[in-house]
Amino acid sequence: MSGPRLTPLATSLPATIPFVGPETMERLRGAPFTARLGANESPFGPSPRAIAAMCDAVTEAWMYPDPENHDLRQALADYHEIGLDHIVVGEGIDGLLGVVVRLLVAPGDAVVTSDGAYPTFNYHVAGFGGTLHKVPYRDDREDPQALLDRARETGAKLLYLSNPDNPMGSWHDPATIEAMIGNLPDGCLLVLDEAYAGCSDIPTAPPLDVDDPRVIRMRTFSKAHGLAGARVGYAIGAAPLVASFGLVRNHFGVSRLSQTAALAALSDTDWPVEVRRRIAESASAINDIATDAGLVALPTATNFVTIDCGRDGAFARKVLDGLLRRGIFVRMPGVAPLDRCIRVSCGPAPDMERLAQALPGAVAEAS
Amino acid sequence: MSGPRLTPLATSLPATIPFVGPETMERLRGAPFTARLGANESPFGPSPRAIAAMCDAVTEAWMYPDPENHDLRQALADYHEIGLDHIVVGEGIDGLLGVVVRLLVAPGDAVVTSDGAYPTFNYHVAGFGGTLHKVPYRDDREDPQALLDRARETGAKLLYLSNPDNPMGSWHDPATIEAMIGNLPDGCLLVLDEAYAGCSDIPTAPPLDVDDPRVIRMRTFSKAHGLAGARVGYAIGAAPLVASFGLVRNHFGVSRLSQTAALAALSDTDWPVEVRRRIAESASAINDIATDAGLVALPTATNFVTIDCGRDGAFARKVLDGLLRRGIFVRMPGVAPLDRCIRVSCGPAPDMERLAQALPGAVAEAS
Repeated sequence: MSGPRLTPLATSLPATIPFVGPETMERLRGAPFTARLGANESPFGPSPRAIAAMCDAVTEAWMYPDPENHDLRQALADYHEIGLDHIVVGEGIDGLLGVVVRLLVAPGDAVVTSDGAYPTFNYHVAGFGGTLHKVPYRDDREDPQALLDRARETGAKLLYLSNPDNPMGSWHDPATIEAMIGNLPDGCLLVLDEAYAGCSDIPTAPPLDVDDPRVIRMRTFSKAHGLAGARVGYAIGAAPLVASFGLVRNHFGVSRLSQTAALAALSDTDWPVEVRRRIAESASAINDIATDAGLVALPTATNFVTIDCGRDGAFARKVLDGLLRRGIFVRMPGVAPLDRCIRVSCGPAPDMERLAQALPGAVAEAS
Repeated sequence: MSGPRLTPLATSLPATIPFVGPETMERLRGAPFTARLGANESPFGPSPRAIAAMCDAVTEAWMYPDPENHDLRQALADYHEIGLDHIVVGEGIDGLLGVVVRLLVAPGDAVVTSDGAYPTFNYHVAGFGGTLHKVPYRDDREDPQALLDRARETGAKLLYLSNPDNPMGSWHDPATIEAMIGNLPDGCLLVLDEAYAGCSDIPTAPPLDVDDPRVIRMRTFSKAHGLAGARVGYAIGAAPLVASFGLVRNHFGVSRLSQTAALAALSDTDWPVEVRRRIAESASAINDIATDAGLVALPTATNFVTIDCGRDGAFARKVLDGLLRRGIFVRMPGVAPLDRCIRVSCGPAPDMERLAQALPGAVAEAS
C-alpha cells in the first residue's frame, strides 16, 4: 500500500508556520502568561453590545451561518456608504489573503512585499507557488516607491502593503497611499492591509474608491473591535474582483456567532472611541516604561508599540526571552534591521504594571 | 488602468455555488420559514454543556483562537483513543475537504465520486482544476465496486465516499467500507466523509486504523452534535498526511468560541444518546407523514429522511416548491434518478406538525 500522492507544489512546501500561538508557548513553559501582549489583540475587549449579542445567540449555534454573510455585509455597506457587491467577508484577513492569492497567483507569478512584513501573506504566496520579491523597509516604514519599482521590474500580480504597518507601528498618510495606487504598474493589484485602521486618530486611509480595480482593502474585527477570537475580516474592492472570491472561498467558513458579534460591534459607535482612548493611554504608558528601561518606543498608529532595543537582533531576542520568562507574552519582528525591536500590544493598566515590573530586569539580563 | 490578472484556472471557474442558504431564500420570498428542515442541521441543538461553555467564554472573544486547536484535538484523541498527530481540525468538513483537495489535486488530476454526492467536494475539485469522474448510485446507495473500478481506470488521486450517504440517507456496513479500503488502487486516497456518523445506532464506521495511509476520515460537530453554526470539523488520518494540512491551512480559521463549544459538546456522553433518540422519533414521524401523503420514505442512518416522490425530478421539484411556499425549508438531490426525492431533516414535534400540514397540499398541487 502506498500513501497519497501530494502535488509537486505541496511536496515542496516548508513545514514552517507563520505564528506559534501563545497557548503553545504556555504549554511548553508549563505556566500561563500573566500579560498577553504579543498578538496585537485588544485586551480591552469587544463592545458590550457584541458580548450581549453573542450570549443571546448561543442557542442559534445549531444553524449553519448565512453563507452570504448578508446582514453583516449590508451593515458594512451602510457603514462605509458603498454597495453590497463591493464587500466580501472571510475567516479573518488571513483567510481573505489566502483567497486573493489563490485567485491571482499561479506557480512562478511574481508578488512584491516588504522584507519583514506580514508573514501570513508570504505563507499564502508560497502555498500557491508564487515568487516573493522583498523590498527593505526605509526608516522603519514600508517604502512605497521601492515597492512600486520592484513591482514594475518583476511584473508583479500583487503588491502587499500594510498601512498602518505591522510590525513597526509606522504609517503613511492617505495622500501617499493614494499616490501609490495612482502609480501602480498596469495589472498589479495592491493588497492594502488596513487591519490597524481605527486604532488611532492618525489619518492613514485614503477615501474609498470602490470601483478602482487596482486595489483591494482588507479590514478586520480582530483589532480595534476586539474580536480576534471570532475570525471575521472583510475585503473591499471592485465588484468583479469581490465576486471572484465566491468562485473559491469556503462559503460556510465564518461562524454564525461570529457574524452576530461583528454585526453588533459595528452598531456601537461609542466603543471604538473609548478603545482608541485606552490604546493611546496604554501606548503612552509603554513609552514611559520603555524609556525608564533605557529603550526607545517608536511612534505608532496601531494598537501596539514597537520598542527599539538599541542594538542587534540577538540583543532584542534576549530582552524578549527575558520578558517571556517573566510571564509577559510579546513578539518581535523577524528580519534585520527591524529585529532590533520588540513589539508590545497595548493593554489595560494591570498589564502595563506587569510590563513595567518585568522590562528592566529583562534588559539588565540581556545587557 | 487595468484590472487584476486572475489565474487561467480562476478565470475558467463557473460562478455556481454549492448551496444557497435558507437566509437567502427567506430574503427572496420576503418571509421566514416556519420549519428549517433543509440543511440537515440539528434543531435539537447542541449539548446544554456546549451552550453553557459558549456563554462562559464570550468574554474571551478578544483573544485569537489556539491555531493548533490543541485542547480540542487532545480531547478528540482521547475520545477516539488515537494519537494527537492523527487529528486535524478545520472550518467544518467543507474547509477540510478544500485543504485535502488542494494538497493532492493539481490541474488535470483525476478524482472519483458518485453522481449526485456532496456538491461542495466537487466545488473544491473544480476549484483546483481537477477532473471529476462520476459513478452512478446503485439502488440509492453509492456503489463501492464501481467507484473502485473508476478510480483504477482513471488513476484517481482521490475517491470520495460519504457513509452514511448524503443526500440519500443510505449506508454501507463497516465490513463493506473496510473491504473497499483494502481494494483501493495504489496511490488513491479514500476521502471517507462520516459527517452523519453518530446520528443513528446503525453501525457504519469501520474501526479506526490511523496508520493506514489510504484513507482520511472526516467528522463534524455540525450534525449529531448540533453545532453547524460553529464550523468545526476534523479529519483523522495517517500522521504524515495530517501534518501536511499544516502546510497550507488557515491556522487561525476556527473561532475561539467554536473550539470551546466543540470541546464541551464532546465531554457530554448523554446528549448524543438523547439526540439519536429524538432523530429516530422524528424519522418515524417523517415516515408516517410521507406515507399519509402517498409518498415513500427511504431508510436512513442519518439525521434526515429522503422521501421518494414516486415520479421524476420535475415532479419532486414541484413538491419541494410547494413546501417552500408553505414555509417549510427542505432540499432535494440535484441529479437523476436521485432527484425523484426530497430530503427532510429530522426535527422536533412542532416542525413535524408543520410538515404534516404542508405536505399533502404540496403533493396535491404537484400532481
